Amino acid sequence: MNQFTSVNDVQDIGQLVKDALALKENPYSHQHLGKNKTLGLVFLNPSLRTRLSTQKAALNLGMNVMVMNMDKEGWALETQDGVVMNGTTVEHIREAAAVMGQYCDILGLRSFPKLINRDEDYNEDFFNKFIKYCNVPVVSLESATRHPLQSLADLVTIKETWGGAARPKVVLAWAPHIKALPQAVPNSFAEWMCKAQVDGMLDFTIAQPKGYELSEDFTPGATITHSLDEALKGADYIYVKNWSSFKEYGKVLTYPEGWMLNNEKLVGTNNAKVMHCLPVRRDLELSSEILDGPNSLVIHEAGNRLWAAQAVLKQMLEKL
Amino acid sequence: MNQFTSVNDVQDIGQLVKDALALKENPYSHQHLGKNKTLGLVFLNPSLRTRLSTQKAALNLGMNVMVMNMDKEGWALETQDGVVMNGTTVEHIREAAAVMGQYCDILGLRSFPKLINRDEDYNEDFFNKFIKYCNVPVVSLESATRHPLQSLADLVTIKETWGGAARPKVVLAWAPHIKALPQAVPNSFAEWMCKAQVDGMLDFTIAQPKGYELSEDFTPGATITHSLDEALKGADYIYVKNWSSFKEYGKVLTYPEGWMLNNEKLVGTNNAKVMHCLPVRRDLELSSEILDGPNSLVIHEAGNRLWAAQAVLKQMLEKL
Amino acid sequence: MNQFTSVNDVQDIGQLVKDALALKENPYSHQHLGKNKTLGLVFLNPSLRTRLSTQKAALNLGMNVMVMNMDKEGWALETQDGVVMNGTTVEHIREAAAVMGQYCDILGLRSFPKLINRDEDYNEDFFNKFIKYCNVPVVSLESATRHPLQSLADLVTIKETWGGAARPKVVLAWAPHIKALPQAVPNSFAEWMCKAQVDGMLDFTIAQPKGYELSEDFTPGATITHSLDEALKGADYIYVKNWSSFKEYGKVLTYPEGWMLNNEKLVGTNNAKVMHCLPVRRDLELSSEILDGPNSLVIHEAGNRLWAAQAVLKQMLEKL
Repeated sequence: MNQFTSVNDVQDIGQLVKDALALKENPYSHQHLGKNKTLGLVFLNPSLRTRLSTQKAALNLGMNVMVMNMDKEGWALETQDGVVMNGTTVEHIREAAAVMGQYCDILGLRSFPKLINRDEDYNEDFFNKFIKYCNVPVVSLESATRHPLQSLADLVTIKETWGGAARPKVVLAWAPHIKALPQAVPNSFAEWMCKAQVDGMLDFTIAQPKGYELSEDFTPGATITHSLDEALKGADYIYVKNWSSFKEYGKVLTYPEGWMLNNEKLVGTNNAKVMHCLPVRRDLELSSEILDGPNSLVIHEAGNRLWAAQAVLKQMLEKL
Repeated sequence: MNQFTSVNDVQDIGQLVKDALALKENPYSHQHLGKNKTLGLVFLNPSLRTRLSTQKAALNLGMNVMVMNMDKEGWALETQDGVVMNGTTVEHIREAAAVMGQYCDILGLRSFPKLINRDEDYNEDFFNKFIKYCNVPVVSLESATRHPLQSLADLVTIKETWGGAARPKVVLAWAPHIKALPQAVPNSFAEWMCKAQVDGMLDFTIAQPKGYELSEDFTPGATITHSLDEALKGADYIYVKNWSSFKEYGKVLTYPEGWMLNNEKLVGTNNAKVMHCLPVRRDLELSSEILDGPNSLVIHEAGNRLWAAQAVLKQMLEKL
Repeated sequence: MNQFTSVNDVQDIGQLVKDALALKENPYSHQHLGKNKTLGLVFLNPSLRTRLSTQKAALNLGMNVMVMNMDKEGWALETQDGVVMNGTTVEHIREAAAVMGQYCDILGLRSFPKLINRDEDYNEDFFNKFIKYCNVPVVSLESATRHPLQSLADLVTIKETWGGAARPKVVLAWAPHIKALPQAVPNSFAEWMCKAQVDGMLDFTIAQPKGYELSEDFTPGATITHSLDEALKGADYIYVKNWSSFKEYGKVLTYPEGWMLNNEKLVGTNNAKVMHCLPVRRDLELSSEILDGPNSLVIHEAGNRLWAAQAVLKQMLEKL
């Protein structure tokens, strides 16, 4: 693998999931791969799970890790070409990316969307320029529109925990929030689940209030509904997540009551397991009774972030 | 050792001191213990000595270290149960601690008191919840009420430097400051010295102005006085430290002149060695003439932070 | 080498350049040197290239690295002696430096000038006190008046890329900026080039507008001119850099047009290679056409920061 920014960078998602679960069994089996190799983790936004799990994944593979919080330790980067840099930006992405590529064998990058201009965010201008100029393999630590390490960990978790004979019914369920959040996690989850559906691994449904439909680019083949209750019928996995509107870009729209998942809502499901990428706002996005109860997979899922990252880094190291 | 948050977590403080001094002689003798083990250091407040000494201690033991400045790299954590998280906190301690425990074999945690509500601080609510939910051994990097790695380093320093036949007289001496500081360091020093006194290692006296008495929970068996001069008579070690009032919680009370230690005050002592946990405000808490003179142990003492941390991590690794 | 704060700390700059280029060929040839040795990198100001390249250099040598952003993770340091510390500074440089020296075998330090009081900055008071009190070898990561790791990388780059028979003509060319920048990079570059000129490695010219002359302490033997066009005639290397006035200390003075280098200005040169320490403000300091064109060495030069740092650390480790 030469880059990991979306499901489209993966040749065989089934094999990648198997790799992750094999590494979970034998975390230190590939330590020779990372010897004298350095992973640079570049953050333009805060991170807890992603930073720690990716750092640990690299250490398990014998790599060195250098963490750079550009928003705090560095300075503002310019991304536009052709501008006279007499304002607040101190360095152009062309130089900054190229320089970081000089010191690292693989680079990880996190950069959130601004949620102001949809085209700007969905063009992934910053991410694509970083990839273009840094000249080494890049792994996304969450971009404006995708969070593929999270989605891979989610698929690993489903694969690992599903014991049924039939294909599990997986539901992505919109949830309330007080802030305008990116669509990166649900976009990414949707495109991974749609791919897994094509591969016959599961059936995929999305439920969201009117106005919160995701971009169709990420949801080919998904069953889409405005009724949470309808979506939950017979569900095996419920992936709870808030996002702001794609249509009225970045807006928090009004929505009907009843979108926060609680035990009562689980009644019509197949004793569904509940997932969330975290951080989660308790009793706003998701009820405490579920988070503290037997149906929650959220900590297990967070734990699998480690093996997802390790599987991706392993495949990248094998190509260096 | 499964956790290290106070002297009560230690079975035999004499043995732990011996371990620290043995590691000082042979720093790399136990590097196999930490192979493929990861220490996560989580800071909710700034740190210099504690961070560097604990990080170095873990490296000496062959561990990997991941540092997380939650106050800067992460986000605000909720600690109260049963609240709807529609305010400024982004993640609950239940999830945050559990997730960090997924990626680390041992966690270190620093969290200062707010000095507003005494019960809240002395309940150690944040620390206890972190320990409860993270599910791995925890070493305190200073909590609301204790700083045991500091106290252990202090005891190591006394043990290492005392050449007398009799038990040394150790005095904890309150000192002036312009800010309201926690009682964590003096509480912790007091409970370690009281334990060492029971074990026959030393005699322990505390001197502070009226109103600055520490909680009796930390001072069993200590000689307590309001007269600095009386306390200093025949002293072998003077541990200088400011703290805010426990009784009028978190307040800076008025106090009589003469509480800053200087060479004149050393006259009646047994040529006492002077200690301080640092950082120290020169000529406010402690005179420059002492800090720059032959009686000061403060740098030596800071150096011993490394061996104290290494002894604790070693005992924890042996139990993993 | 016991410290590395200026060209004067180097016995033989030609040998150091050779060491750097040899390490570039065999990066991991000296990994035994750094075993169980720890490099502490202390930043009082932001850093991208310096931090990552020095960290990677140490890792290549088998060292452990601890990074401390004092401006964000620590607290304000007092540098004046004899003051009662009842203000905003929390710890004195005497203690802070001594303590960091307890945990590290080598310390790197970055501390920018304030650009207010020339004597204060040029006395290097902070740097010198840090060196005095930390008691371990110190490598400058840029001080108030010098940036020697940058200058060494610059000399390495010239040596590596120069294929001519005669000595190359190297020009330090002042460039416009909107902010008042330190003289550290040009001072340092000048003193390294002047030394290299004495050693017969190159010819050195400085061009700057009136009022921007550097301190003569750094420019012995350099050809100095106020005409950029005159300086560029026959130039083989042009080192572009802005700095604020030394004479009217820290001021941004008015200057005639024509000081930004572009392709037109390259016409009279010997197809000169263009260098810059980065970060660079495009089309303010230096034209995009040059930065994106075949004459630019800036990324190559940034890459050489790694080998410069590794050569210095190697010589320091050999003396430990």
